[in-house]
Amino acid sequence: MAKIVECVPNISEGRRKDVIEACVDQIRQTAGVTLLDYSSDESHNRSVITFMGSPEGVEEAAVKLAKKAAELIDLTKHTGEHPRMGAVDVIPFIPIREISTEECIALSKKTAQRIWEEAKMPVFLYESSASAPHRQNLAAVRKGQFEGMAEKVLLPEWEPDFGGRTVHPTAGTVAVGVRPFLVAYNINLSTSDVSVAKAIAGIIREKNGGLHCVKALGLYIEERDMAQVSINMTDCNVTPLYRVVELVRAEAKRYGVSIIGTEVVGLTPMKFLIDSAEYYLQLENFDADRQVLESHMLK
Amino acid sequence: MAKIVECVPNISEGRRKDVIEACVDQIRQTAGVTLLDYSSDESHNRSVITFMGSPEGVEEAAVKLAKKAAELIDLTKHTGEHPRMGAVDVIPFIPIREISTEECIALSKKTAQRIWEEAKMPVFLYESSASAPHRQNLAAVRKGQFEGMAEKVLLPEWEPDFGGRTVHPTAGTVAVGVRPFLVAYNINLSTSDVSVAKAIAGIIREKNGGLHCVKALGLYIEERDMAQVSINMTDCNVTPLYRVVELVRAEAKRYGVSIIGTEVVGLTPMKFLIDSAEYYLQLENFDADRQVLESHMLK
Repeated sequence: MAKIVECVPNISEGRRKDVIEACVDQIRQTAGVTLLDYSSDESHNRSVITFMGSPEGVEEAAVKLAKKAAELIDLTKHTGEHPRMGAVDVIPFIPIREISTEECIALSKKTAQRIWEEAKMPVFLYESSASAPHRQNLAAVRKGQFEGMAEKVLLPEWEPDFGGRTVHPTAGTVAVGVRPFLVAYNINLSTSDVSVAKAIAGIIREKNGGLHCVKALGLYIEERDMAQVSINMTDCNVTPLYRVVELVRAEAKRYGVSIIGTEVVGLTPMKFLIDSAEYYLQLENFDADRQVLESHMLK
Repeated sequence: MAKIVECVPNISEGRRKDVIEACVDQIRQTAGVTLLDYSSDESHNRSVITFMGSPEGVEEAAVKLAKKAAELIDLTKHTGEHPRMGAVDVIPFIPIREISTEECIALSKKTAQRIWEEAKMPVFLYESSASAPHRQNLAAVRKGQFEGMAEKVLLPEWEPDFGGRTVHPTAGTVAVGVRPFLVAYNINLSTSDVSVAKAIAGIIREKNGGLHCVKALGLYIEERDMAQVSINMTDCNVTPLYRVVELVRAEAKRYGVSIIGTEVVGLTPMKFLIDSAEYYLQLENFDADRQVLESHMLK
């Protein structure tokens, strides 16, 4: 089986189709990677590109994308609602298969070095790749944005990890790092009372002492006249989907409320669903890498 | 995404390592297929080879295997406990992804034609590929075995589908056809009383009016002093794993017995586990082909 890494760069362009396509073409034209998705937000003036592949392929595609974005996107002329500090703003690497977080961190550093050398954008390492705890959080790294970065990098605690203190005059700086796969997961309740969803969200979220790697909000979904617990699972290897479902089910009972359905928004690695199948089916000694047919067919 | 077909040929050699390896090498040396497993049984004097890949690759590998087996295995000198009629005895094709049963049947017929032309073994089509209902069942096709085949093919209802009535003098005849993926699935009970397992097996099996595509036996597992419902799921697209588990759970309750664990023996396509995850997690509108990351990485 092969090592697989996912990469989800965000570029600071969500309006000019030709620029977006030229950037996405860098992924399309790189061997060893598969473009999964890309989408643009005009009001944010930002696009999210999702691709995956071999570590070598992902590195090459990320560097080519950074060069093209630095060439075509001028942040001195950029407006949009979303905070940003670079033409390519953030490049997260996500270990998917057969690759450890440590190997992925090494990959992120190698890529960061090349982005500085080839695109001349200074790089902050963030999340698991961060060189200090205060640099883990992307919002903290990006604070001050493009306009404030020339000044910010002069502070002792904010020297970029690669490229020194000279911000690229039009392309700015970029954050590169490793994070786990995020699953956006909604649990729909048999009530229209949003206070029930809010109460349950408050119980399950990590911040309040609930489950690790769970962020949750209670929402009212008007189209379905229904309350929903909207969840970001930041690491399903720590807290699997079934555990959240069963905890929500147990807490909902107190209100005479049940789960009417759940939704995975976007993508998930196969493992996170198989983990839940294993739990509910009470599978003993199941080895997905060996026993799931498709595991043997991955490039 | 690509079309994937699995193929599980059985050859009538389980003792001579050099012959077995020469046959397996035909799979190893074919582009577009992946060897998953092979295992030999000395008392049966038979080996089972499991591989999968593109339709073209699987066809090529199956034909090459048939030629090599016909060259190296002489059934006039073959002894073993397992019934057999050919050097390669049976070649089932199993649709795995993006390919319909109908397309697979066409593939099995094309392969059968080539096996006759290139290996000179007459072919019976069986299972979903069968040319008449009485030829669906492999045991019926194979009845009389190698020794009786020269006479059997003279019967009006047993003319081979390819190759006419002249059986290969040393390699015999072979059955080629399409069948669904079989999952061997065990459900372990919280009792050592085998009569409970036998009663439940009797209820769930198709033959007794239970669930379609379910064959089941009640067994006593000595190493664990435990009763087990041992199941062959002949088509998990018709009866998914979770349905069998929940029916066994419900029936076991009457005896105060619960499920202590389940086992998938060997391989399963990812879909069969994801189907059960979808059920238990109550997933709405989940599209595994689009939303499971690995679906996009299959060759």
